[in-house]
Amino acid sequence: RYSDGATYFDMGEHTLRVPMSLHAENRARLVARLKEMIGEGKLNAGSAVLLQGGSDVQRDATDCTWVFRQESFFHWVFGVLEPDWFGVIKVDSGKTTLFCPKLPQDFAVVMGRIIPPEDFKTRYQVESVCYVDDMPEVLGKMKPTTLLTLKGVNSDSGLTTREAHFDGIDKFSVNNSILHTEMSELRVTKSAAEIEVMRYAAMVSSEAHCAVMKHIRPGMYEYQLESVFQHHSYYQGGCRHQAYTNICGGGVSGAVLHYGHAGAPNDCIIRDGDMCLFDMGAEYYCYASDVTCSFPANGKFSADQKMIYNAVLAANRAVFDSAKPGVKWDDMHELSYRVMLKKLKEGGLLTGDVEEMIKADIGGVFQPHGLGHLIGMDAHDPGGYLPSCPPRPTKDGFNKLRMARVLKHNMVLTIEPGCYFIDVLLDRALADPKKSKFIVKEELERFRGFGGVRIEDDVVIREEGNDLLNKVPRTVEEIETLMAEGRQEIVSFPHAEGKHSSQR
Amino acid sequence: RYSDGATYFDMGEHTLRVPMSLHAENRARLVARLKEMIGEGKLNAGSAVLLQGGSDVQRDATDCTWVFRQESFFHWVFGVLEPDWFGVIKVDSGKTTLFCPKLPQDFAVVMGRIIPPEDFKTRYQVESVCYVDDMPEVLGKMKPTTLLTLKGVNSDSGLTTREAHFDGIDKFSVNNSILHTEMSELRVTKSAAEIEVMRYAAMVSSEAHCAVMKHIRPGMYEYQLESVFQHHSYYQGGCRHQAYTNICGGGVSGAVLHYGHAGAPNDCIIRDGDMCLFDMGAEYYCYASDVTCSFPANGKFSADQKMIYNAVLAANRAVFDSAKPGVKWDDMHELSYRVMLKKLKEGGLLTGDVEEMIKADIGGVFQPHGLGHLIGMDAHDPGGYLPSCPPRPTKDGFNKLRMARVLKHNMVLTIEPGCYFIDVLLDRALADPKKSKFIVKEELERFRGFGGVRIEDDVVIREEGNDLLNKVPRTVEEIETLMAEGRQEIVSFPHAEGKHSSQR
Ligand SMILES: [Mn+2]
Ligand SMILES: [Mn+2]
Repeated sequence: RYSDGATYFDMGEHTLRVPMSLHAENRARLVARLKEMIGEGKLNAGSAVLLQGGSDVQRDATDCTWVFRQESFFHWVFGVLEPDWFGVIKVDSGKTTLFCPKLPQDFAVVMGRIIPPEDFKTRYQVESVCYVDDMPEVLGKMKPTTLLTLKGVNSDSGLTTREAHFDGIDKFSVNNSILHTEMSELRVTKSAAEIEVMRYAAMVSSEAHCAVMKHIRPGMYEYQLESVFQHHSYYQGGCRHQAYTNICGGGVSGAVLHYGHAGAPNDCIIRDGDMCLFDMGAEYYCYASDVTCSFPANGKFSADQKMIYNAVLAANRAVFDSAKPGVKWDDMHELSYRVMLKKLKEGGLLTGDVEEMIKADIGGVFQPHGLGHLIGMDAHDPGGYLPSCPPRPTKDGFNKLRMARVLKHNMVLTIEPGCYFIDVLLDRALADPKKSKFIVKEELERFRGFGGVRIEDDVVIREEGNDLLNKVPRTVEEIETLMAEGRQEIVSFPHAEGKHSSQR
Repeated sequence: RYSDGATYFDMGEHTLRVPMSLHAENRARLVARLKEMIGEGKLNAGSAVLLQGGSDVQRDATDCTWVFRQESFFHWVFGVLEPDWFGVIKVDSGKTTLFCPKLPQDFAVVMGRIIPPEDFKTRYQVESVCYVDDMPEVLGKMKPTTLLTLKGVNSDSGLTTREAHFDGIDKFSVNNSILHTEMSELRVTKSAAEIEVMRYAAMVSSEAHCAVMKHIRPGMYEYQLESVFQHHSYYQGGCRHQAYTNICGGGVSGAVLHYGHAGAPNDCIIRDGDMCLFDMGAEYYCYASDVTCSFPANGKFSADQKMIYNAVLAANRAVFDSAKPGVKWDDMHELSYRVMLKKLKEGGLLTGDVEEMIKADIGGVFQPHGLGHLIGMDAHDPGGYLPSCPPRPTKDGFNKLRMARVLKHNMVLTIEPGCYFIDVLLDRALADPKKSKFIVKEELERFRGFGGVRIEDDVVIREEGNDLLNKVPRTVEEIETLMAEGRQEIVSFPHAEGKHSSQR
């Protein structure tokens, strides 16, 4: 809810007030950078940025739409949460013009009061708001020397952004080659206002994870805990969207990295003795959180579960303590492998020299994913592999990293080491003498079907010490205490009395 | 969860088991119809149906996807809930071949066990399953005289279905002109198996609506009730998707027909004295429900609320009692206007002859939408305006109808009369002497800001008497009783103690 008098957005007095100045500040950062480029002779004076917002997405050919979610680059500069808008920023003056769709009178019957441009101008705190229909004329008068449009490839999806387009754009000189890199780089470090929104999203997720840990009982279906999480995020925190598809793996499902998709939709029964790996994150005002909690379904860690859990926790903490501006992310990735492998060796699962293990990519056998990723408006925020950044490492165990950059002050990223027992990877490693010599086979067999552990935090890299945005129980003791508390309450679930199928 | 031994789908023992034979029956109906067309010389012997399933939909250029939901026509014939499949049915033999994507070995790490085609063959109960990669070769050997593909316009969205395509399809003779009409017409009447799935979805929605009515307290935000509904649908009913964007209007929001969209996202506070209009429907196994409940936020109808509510209820019941095979849907629409306007006249809001009111489109002033729509896999199921059907009426008050067909046995549709107080429509009517003479202005003014009432049921049209799929309290007494029961429980919500903004 935008408060048109006070220029903020919230979802009620129990939720975070986001000031519209967040976007003014983002625009100022963008304009400052583009002026720098003009100074450097890389861009014409008189240029203007032109962005096109997202449109509603239909389910196939039907009239059912996904609940609209604004395109992230557009939201970053303008803060508009509705479909079919455009926005222009003049680089010289920083003046912003938004373009809203002109809605027919009868729209009011179906969609509610039609807000006039003047009201939008106050709401979004911009210099002017016009109709999209009038954009060719307004831009014609504005006479930008160049229109900067957004075209670039997302390094996580491989998809290209939708470039702004309108009938008549061919009358302008368009440059689509610089904006994506510059905006992506600006999005990599977050402003104080952005960090507060991300902290809120992470706190909502934290509380929702705690609600799940208290609510869970063996015999429930995984998706029922997904439902508890989503309900808590929305009802308590005002988060209508989740930042990504929730991963709720019980037991062996925890070893499927992207569990929760349509082919494995969190639909297994959670059994007594299972380890759970729940990777779920709420989104507030288009800012993501991405938090993973791992815990035993029955509330008490077994000795094996504790050993694995503490190995991952040690890796998580070591990285949190070492990650700071100037440090290379791939070095942190290696550090997490080093710490975890050492602990697994102490636990009797591995044998031999840890540095040799790293060279043989034993890390990648147990954690076949990168240590973490940039996070912001998107759970996997852009900017990991921009042209100016180190390219994706090619080395085994490092090539899955979503970035290999040097850390900067106010970067926000996830630290998410994990340890998984994935049959196909274990079998491959056991069949490879260079790897199998490090593995204590007799011990390992006991862990088949264990699933996995991941401990994922959302962290702001700071000169003065990192800022942990989420707050969930992390030590074995903290988790067992919270879960014991949850066990005090009687929880009934629909099939609690029924027979449980043992099929997975 | 598909049970590969027993050939059904469910989301646990507390949810409905859907037999895979549902799709075999749909395929048999399709093949029978196409054979008929071969007999009539309208289609070549040796033809085959080729359908392409849905693909994952990304949020803009990011790697975040909407939770996959299968394209409805594809699901109707095959029952496959995963992306990127194709399917072929030979018309002469009815033999079905499914084509699944060939996934790389490492997919198992990220997405889980790779299911081999033989297992899919058992799961989906089809004659064979091959890889999509092999489709050109397999089809080449099959030598269909014609490939029938799906191309047609959805009359609710105006969008065209995505026609099946693969590299090499140009080597086949393709006919895209008949399948959409034939499949749409088949989808209009539901099989017994389909009706049971729809009954289940409607029952989940019914129970979720009851949970909302019990939970609601003035001072809550509308979206908090949306969250309660979604949680109940998913946690209790196994419904991961909703059938459409939920409409949760308190007070004046109830007069916005598609309230709940991004520009009006169920974000107002519900006040004591407000009428609520909650239009929410869970989806199970890609079958929709679409149920609207209207009730007073505080659990007790005022005299005015009761009068409006009972006018709408009378219209709903009159249609339920009169709608049967052979009846024209636009006549039912007129009947609902007749009954409602008569009641509004008795309530003192209108004056004059009811038949004259209908001619002057007073109906459209208070209910500016159609009486209801086909429902099935889509909330607005296709088939309303096929070439063989009566075209969209042009008359004011009737032109919003989503169909104007003659009812048939086993059609499933919504009956959803409503009465809304929409300023723009009231002002227009008062300014028009042909309309204003029927309106008792002094009485009407009291209802400004009232919002609206809609009573929406999901109904199977049957020769032997209609089958009501949902089960929610409908009379004033039933609603007040249920809500009083809910009031026995203490409900705390995050801002219950805070000051409430009066702003809407
Ligand atoms: Mn993550
Ligand atoms: Mn409806």
